[in-house]
Amino acid sequence: MRNKLVTKRSAKAGLPPGTLVHIGERHREAARVSIIAYDEKGVYEQASDDLAACFPLRNQPEVSWINVEGIHSIELLQKLGECYGIHPLVLEDILNTDQRPKREDYGAYLFIVLKMLSLKNGNKGVAAEQMSLILGENFVLSFQEGLAGDPFDPVRERLRAGRGKIRSLGADYLVYSLIDAIIDNYFVILESLAERIERLEEELVANPVRETVGRLHILKREVIFLRKSIWPLREVISGLERRESSLVREETAIYLRDVYDHTVQIIDTVETFRDILSGLLDIYLSTLSNRTNEVMKVLTIIATLFMPLTFIAGLYGMNFHYMPELNWRWGYPAVLILMLLVIGGMLVFFRRKKWI
Amino acid sequence: MRNKLVTKRSAKAGLPPGTLVHIGERHREAARVSIIAYDEKGVYEQASDDLAACFPLRNQPEVSWINVEGIHSIELLQKLGECYGIHPLVLEDILNTDQRPKREDYGAYLFIVLKMLSLKNGNKGVAAEQMSLILGENFVLSFQEGLAGDPFDPVRERLRAGRGKIRSLGADYLVYSLIDAIIDNYFVILESLAERIERLEEELVANPVRETVGRLHILKREVIFLRKSIWPLREVISGLERRESSLVREETAIYLRDVYDHTVQIIDTVETFRDILSGLLDIYLSTLSNRTNEVMKVLTIIATLFMPLTFIAGLYGMNFHYMPELNWRWGYPAVLILMLLVIGGMLVFFRRKKWI
Amino acid sequence: MRNKLVTKRSAKAGLPPGTLVHIGERHREAARVSIIAYDEKGVYEQASDDLAACFPLRNQPEVSWINVEGIHSIELLQKLGECYGIHPLVLEDILNTDQRPKREDYGAYLFIVLKMLSLKNGNKGVAAEQMSLILGENFVLSFQEGLAGDPFDPVRERLRAGRGKIRSLGADYLVYSLIDAIIDNYFVILESLAERIERLEEELVANPVRETVGRLHILKREVIFLRKSIWPLREVISGLERRESSLVREETAIYLRDVYDHTVQIIDTVETFRDILSGLLDIYLSTLSNRTNEVMKVLTIIATLFMPLTFIAGLYGMNFHYMPELNWRWGYPAVLILMLLVIGGMLVFFRRKKWI
Amino acid sequence: MRNKLVTKRSAKAGLPPGTLVHIGERHREAARVSIIAYDEKGVYEQASDDLAACFPLRNQPEVSWINVEGIHSIELLQKLGECYGIHPLVLEDILNTDQRPKREDYGAYLFIVLKMLSLKNGNKGVAAEQMSLILGENFVLSFQEGLAGDPFDPVRERLRAGRGKIRSLGADYLVYSLIDAIIDNYFVILESLAERIERLEEELVANPVRETVGRLHILKREVIFLRKSIWPLREVISGLERRESSLVREETAIYLRDVYDHTVQIIDTVETFRDILSGLLDIYLSTLSNRTNEVMKVLTIIATLFMPLTFIAGLYGMNFHYMPELNWRWGYPAVLILMLLVIGGMLVFFRRKKWI
Amino acid sequence: MRNKLVTKRSAKAGLPPGTLVHIGERHREAARVSIIAYDEKGVYEQASDDLAACFPLRNQPEVSWINVEGIHSIELLQKLGECYGIHPLVLEDILNTDQRPKREDYGAYLFIVLKMLSLKNGNKGVAAEQMSLILGENFVLSFQEGLAGDPFDPVRERLRAGRGKIRSLGADYLVYSLIDAIIDNYFVILESLAERIERLEEELVANPVRETVGRLHILKREVIFLRKSIWPLREVISGLERRESSLVREETAIYLRDVYDHTVQIIDTVETFRDILSGLLDIYLSTLSNRTNEVMKVLTIIATLFMPLTFIAGLYGMNFHYMPELNWRWGYPAVLILMLLVIGGMLVFFRRKKWI
Repeated sequence: MRNKLVTKRSAKAGLPPGTLVHIGERHREAARVSIIAYDEKGVYEQASDDLAACFPLRNQPEVSWINVEGIHSIELLQKLGECYGIHPLVLEDILNTDQRPKREDYGAYLFIVLKMLSLKNGNKGVAAEQMSLILGENFVLSFQEGLAGDPFDPVRERLRAGRGKIRSLGADYLVYSLIDAIIDNYFVILESLAERIERLEEELVANPVRETVGRLHILKREVIFLRKSIWPLREVISGLERRESSLVREETAIYLRDVYDHTVQIIDTVETFRDILSGLLDIYLSTLSNRTNEVMKVLTIIATLFMPLTFIAGLYGMNFHYMPELNWRWGYPAVLILMLLVIGGMLVFFRRKKWI
Repeated sequence: MRNKLVTKRSAKAGLPPGTLVHIGERHREAARVSIIAYDEKGVYEQASDDLAACFPLRNQPEVSWINVEGIHSIELLQKLGECYGIHPLVLEDILNTDQRPKREDYGAYLFIVLKMLSLKNGNKGVAAEQMSLILGENFVLSFQEGLAGDPFDPVRERLRAGRGKIRSLGADYLVYSLIDAIIDNYFVILESLAERIERLEEELVANPVRETVGRLHILKREVIFLRKSIWPLREVISGLERRESSLVREETAIYLRDVYDHTVQIIDTVETFRDILSGLLDIYLSTLSNRTNEVMKVLTIIATLFMPLTFIAGLYGMNFHYMPELNWRWGYPAVLILMLLVIGGMLVFFRRKKWI
Repeated sequence: MRNKLVTKRSAKAGLPPGTLVHIGERHREAARVSIIAYDEKGVYEQASDDLAACFPLRNQPEVSWINVEGIHSIELLQKLGECYGIHPLVLEDILNTDQRPKREDYGAYLFIVLKMLSLKNGNKGVAAEQMSLILGENFVLSFQEGLAGDPFDPVRERLRAGRGKIRSLGADYLVYSLIDAIIDNYFVILESLAERIERLEEELVANPVRETVGRLHILKREVIFLRKSIWPLREVISGLERRESSLVREETAIYLRDVYDHTVQIIDTVETFRDILSGLLDIYLSTLSNRTNEVMKVLTIIATLFMPLTFIAGLYGMNFHYMPELNWRWGYPAVLILMLLVIGGMLVFFRRKKWI
Repeated sequence: MRNKLVTKRSAKAGLPPGTLVHIGERHREAARVSIIAYDEKGVYEQASDDLAACFPLRNQPEVSWINVEGIHSIELLQKLGECYGIHPLVLEDILNTDQRPKREDYGAYLFIVLKMLSLKNGNKGVAAEQMSLILGENFVLSFQEGLAGDPFDPVRERLRAGRGKIRSLGADYLVYSLIDAIIDNYFVILESLAERIERLEEELVANPVRETVGRLHILKREVIFLRKSIWPLREVISGLERRESSLVREETAIYLRDVYDHTVQIIDTVETFRDILSGLLDIYLSTLSNRTNEVMKVLTIIATLFMPLTFIAGLYGMNFHYMPELNWRWGYPAVLILMLLVIGGMLVFFRRKKWI
Repeated sequence: MRNKLVTKRSAKAGLPPGTLVHIGERHREAARVSIIAYDEKGVYEQASDDLAACFPLRNQPEVSWINVEGIHSIELLQKLGECYGIHPLVLEDILNTDQRPKREDYGAYLFIVLKMLSLKNGNKGVAAEQMSLILGENFVLSFQEGLAGDPFDPVRERLRAGRGKIRSLGADYLVYSLIDAIIDNYFVILESLAERIERLEEELVANPVRETVGRLHILKREVIFLRKSIWPLREVISGLERRESSLVREETAIYLRDVYDHTVQIIDTVETFRDILSGLLDIYLSTLSNRTNEVMKVLTIIATLFMPLTFIAGLYGMNFHYMPELNWRWGYPAVLILMLLVIGGMLVFFRRKKWI
């Protein structure tokens, strides 16, 4: 149920670089390819498994976007790679789904790796899948693992409807739109986490049970995991925004700054989560200490009240022949009064100690 | 009552950039617009909902300051944006009230986002609202959420009275004055927080109760929240002060350095709060441990005193026929003396252990 | 008794910049002004409240040093400011005694803010007062709050006696001497703190009582407070040493490097204090745990010894008619032997557990 | 069994630099030398202890790779050093197997130190041995301690088979392949560690025993140890990738970037381990507190139930002559009912406290 | 016994800079001066208290090394200072033995301050003494406090024997050799510390006693102290290695890089010590908690077993006249069986709780 600490990668040890082996969970469905080519005038769309359709697009002026869902088809990748002149190391990275987010400049194209986050069933955790984007002069290739649905539908809608500037600005703006779609998604995750943290917080202050600390630990792990996916994003996007590659035009950079702001905000929020979660354990521990303290007080009060009384009763339960008190007429009431005095004294003592 | 960890933002996912949707709590009152134009000679003031009045100001030599209170009127924003040539992304950011403080240079104007802090009812917490400032060559636009009153009255007073240099220096000095007004406000918040921390501190050392740890946690959260609002300020204002934009004149930069000093001081203070609050929990836990220890000592003293006595009493309460002590003439007094000896020995033992 | 977390500053909110309002504790005595002018040949000295005497010095070749003790006289400040052409923001900062240490270059003069530390009555804490220095081409202005005596007497002595190079090097060397005098003072504070920490350390290891944790907290706060006063010093003095302003001559820079070394050493020491203090709480908590453990052991030993014995005694205190043991001749001695066996067994058990 | 904190190095104190003394564990087997020379056309291979064979290779155009397994043969090292003109300090560093990973540029050659990690027997810990690589214009020297097998077999296979580009790219690509082989190995270690951490995690949440904390400590130490071996790698490889030495060709740099990515990923993972391990101790401590709490509750419930009952029984066990209750017909049943009421009251009390 | 937190320095407050006052412990023996002059051909050596011998060396081509052991002779220092043209601030720093390690470039010479570490009697702690080195064009002055023996004997031996390059390379190589000798010494300290830490570690896991936490604290303090002495070294030596001063020749820089590596390795190790020590306290605390838990369990088991039994016995010890059970023939055996059932039930309960 929990996220694995490490993805099994050792199988690859010893293979030459650029060897295409899929690392990560394997999924049975076939890969789906969708092709969209557009310019200001119109949109040409096609969804097929036949890549031949996309090859002529390579040399046309329209921007073409090829989206591959499901990355385990190695031949498909190889064909695409040849057609668009992609370096084998890039293809290898697309297959190895445990990459950190990164941005690599290969001159003719930019290679960007991101993580798409989604909520697991029942809102019980965060899953991540790898999104690889390749931005060329007039094309965008995107590769999804395809586990948790396609986040790009709104972008497609905008392309089809020609809303906003998406069709008039170039391939870099399309990449911006895809990144924006992915990062907008993060906010959903953050909201869900925030909700769970706040619920735990209330529970901890009100009435912590033993399971609480386990759930706290799981939340902590998820935040650590999230942090690992999100921190490198900052550098990835800030590099795009500063236009370190000439593939990003100035007009798009302003939009990328917006995405960058979102990224920083997300990182901020994740750090806040960390701070709050580490504070929660302290609350839990102090609540536990408090409880032990309270239990101890009850025990001490009871013991302190009844031990002396039991002793007195025991004293007059002794069977000595010569115990004058036993024969006194008012012996029994006197002992009862003595006991009441002991109780009274103890109560005064407890009150002074502020125990009752 | 507490500050939300995350503002609901997911509703925006998928919309094209620049789409104006208000994010944050929605308030019912209409937006209020006030317009002030001034130069060294005089002040022209107008408060209306009709923006038409401000359009001609655009091209006049006077400095004009348009202050919008209540930002949920999207049409109003759009009109202003068109009139002053503001980028749609800026308008979007003004509406999304969960921005981090930031400074963006759009060439013809500077866009600055700050947080205004205010105390919630009953001095029980800190609320933040977003302040967006746009500084152009001869105009300043300011947008307030309008939740907790307008902090700019002193600035208006100075403008009207012509006190200080405010009317002779340009729009950048006006922006400095607005920022200064906002940041002066932070000191009020810090003083209130400091007071609450000091009260908690005294309480913790003197007589901590169970609720104390809850209040400690709330204070910690507020400081985390404050920190998140204040840290980015440093960079925002230091960039202004270093005159990274040509819209800031050298004469104003000296004043901005003053604001920058204040910002650093505020950050310092917030860090001190953090340090002290994290120390307080340690005190609380050690006080709890101390108490448990004390309770345990009382229990142990009582048990250690009375268990042997009760045993002796029980011993001579046995019903064996042949127990010679029971028939001795001085058996009972002897047992009483034995018991006194036991008590004496125990007291010596406790004293040696420094328990009493 | 404790240092306030925040100085009341909110009163200033809304005033235009450069408004002179004294922030900090107000003291009743009048300000004292002392004027010293010197060159290699001689020293001219005057202590008066009449500033008129200092105005002609402005344009003479001698170096003049005007020291103001007690900064609440606003007129005096204003006169001085006019005479030496000081920016109103500087005067404002001199009055606001909660400044961080800083260094500001105004071209014609350098403005330096430091903290002077002193021990409170009875060596119970650290007090800070603000020292403002203004270094011009041929003049030095120094402003003391005047709470805890004047640290500059040794410098005056050196000036009068012409010892060292103080009279032959310029105003920058005088400023160095003043800063050096202030920072030499810090070592006194550090020694006093170190002594208190070492005393607490011994106490904690030997015999911690409840008050110890309170004193630990107060020491921690003082170190936090000290740190806040001292950290910014590093940057202030390193800037002087690197001769970022042309007012500092190369010959003086070597001496400033010496002061810089001291500053770094002081910061190092304060960090060491922090490390040690945070270790001390751990010792305290583990000592407490140890004690609780010991108390628990005593309780458990007593209970474990006497509960079975008391039970056996109770058993033969039952009043059943048919209890054959009660009529046995050796019943009573047999029970006593049984009890001794129980005690022996328990002692073996405790020994094996290493409890006794 | 555990990794030593410090390797015995003091024996070397006082020797002149460049003195060749082997530091580290000494192994008895003789050193093994293997020589491979190759160009695009073919591979020449030889495994012998006679180094004479490799000397002529020095001046031939083929790339030659000399791999030395077992570094304690000082003469061998000296001969190789003379032949290839290696600085005595480099030879010294090869022998001192407690080096940090580092990269040193000697102009004519690059000296690279890495750590090879392997699992100890029974998967119980991580062992490190030093790998020293020297990259020249047309030669690569590699020195292994030779403790845990040779990780370079896959590289040899690729050389022999001519798979990939390994034979057409130069010596720098060979060094890249060797580094890649070493770093691929790290993933095996990480997977093993991750497995152990996850097992410990489950155990801690489910049913921690006393040994758990010892194992937690050992894991922590291993992660600290790993971190120390891995952190410097980042800088080592990033310097190679940025082509700070002219011995690294541009084509190889792309591959080195890939290795760099892996390094960063490994560091990330190790940091995650640290975070999780430090969280685990907190869980353990809170589980312990929880248990103590539970034990205390049982004790308190029992004591609170039976102490009053025992007292009542003791009361009516007293031997006073005048105790009217003893002679009542319904005295005994009445006392039993009283006892039941006490039990009932206590149960209500415990329920209200949520103890049962 | 412990290292002082702060060296008494306040005595110096107020003195003009360059005043020579010895700070630190004062030692009675006279200072010893040894002079060695050498070039490739031979060595001239002299040990005397008469400095006159060294003055002519100033202007000769040989490299001369003057080593002063015991620095409290102020006249001697002053004479040396005049002869070699040393700045008074440098002489002051040589006397003030609480300097941080530092490197200062005075143009004609470099001033380097290091700490020499040594083990105190009985291997019980680390002592530090100050080593000041002055490197000129053809001379090296070294000043030792002279507390713990002279670490430079191996260097002298090498000079006399002419082993290595020491006589052919210049004064900078001699300084390198001295620094190397000092830093080689650190490894001895680290090994001793590592041994003590490992011993403590085993003790803590096996059987911690109360004194353990005190020893842990002392070790922590020593590591803090060590860290303070070692951290600044990095910068000192890296500056030498980068040849920021022209007094360091390129050939020597390679050797300094070696020393730099050692320094980084030492810092790494000290950081590892810190990490491990802070982990040890956690182990100690959890062991304590564990023990308290165990003690509590024994107490609870005993109380839970015997309290009900004692109550039953007490019940039938009551003296009511009408208690039918007392007259039953099988009353006593029945009660005994009841008690056995109670014991059995409790044992089942404990087993289910996993307490026994």
